[in-house]
Amino acid sequence: MTNPFKTLEQQHKGYRVALADMLPHIRFNEQGLVPAIAQQYDSKEVLMLAWMNQQALEETLATGRVCYWSRSRQTLWRKGESSGQIQRLQGLRIDCDGDTLLLQVDQTGPACHTGRRACFFYEVDGDALIINSDVLIDPEALYREKSTD
Amino acid sequence: MTNPFKTLEQQHKGYRVALADMLPHIRFNEQGLVPAIAQQYDSKEVLMLAWMNQQALEETLATGRVCYWSRSRQTLWRKGESSGQIQRLQGLRIDCDGDTLLLQVDQTGPACHTGRRACFFYEVDGDALIINSDVLIDPEALYREKSTD
Repeated sequence: MTNPFKTLEQQHKGYRVALADMLPHIRFNEQGLVPAIAQQYDSKEVLMLAWMNQQALEETLATGRVCYWSRSRQTLWRKGESSGQIQRLQGLRIDCDGDTLLLQVDQTGPACHTGRRACFFYEVDGDALIINSDVLIDPEALYREKSTD
Repeated sequence: MTNPFKTLEQQHKGYRVALADMLPHIRFNEQGLVPAIAQQYDSKEVLMLAWMNQQALEETLATGRVCYWSRSRQTLWRKGESSGQIQRLQGLRIDCDGDTLLLQVDQTGPACHTGRRACFFYEVDGDALIINSDVLIDPEALYREKSTD
């Protein structure tokens, strides 16, 4: 079957189709997951990349609060459920071939389990890798109430 | 073995380690790939997500021109080799657990095979999915010289 996202790609800006007609065609991988990039909606900082299954995506769209699939814990992961550092959905985009999501979010505090604002804190600098940001909140304080993220 | 990226995470901003000591610990998946997000370095627009194997990453760091692994063609994919729309590497970041890359690039023209600037042109708008941008360059013109992207 032709990928419906490919079929629509020649349409012009402003072209509309029912979301319910396209969601079933998102191309989840062999584990039933798609990568989801979280970008702070106003500063445009890329905060993290996580994974969603169909249920996590549907819940996120229904509630406006971002829910991922935790590959390590094999369960739905309502971002911030342990740390309180939630993500409110401001916008959601799907890429040209329907296999990647871009979430525009409003992140409360740190997105990263280390207590840093963003997960991409290892930065290449010539022959070195440097840490580019400090912790905003000590992770021991973030996770004091619960045992895991 | 403890993930070396996890071991370093408690270090402070400005901490440096040899890049050569960390590259071998990047956590490529079972297909030998990591997701690589490409973000326009100045506007911060997220352009696309593609995949890199170790060779693609090493070539990108060595040449400063972004090279991915094409999953559909199972070959190295020097971005722009067909279309001329190359990506110059301005910065490279690795996430907290060493399994995702964030490339800050300077993208010549459209990043997307459709001729649009970015691949994330399907945007959720209530119950609809809308196309949020127009084609900059007709893909037939982009790929006139070669048969595939």
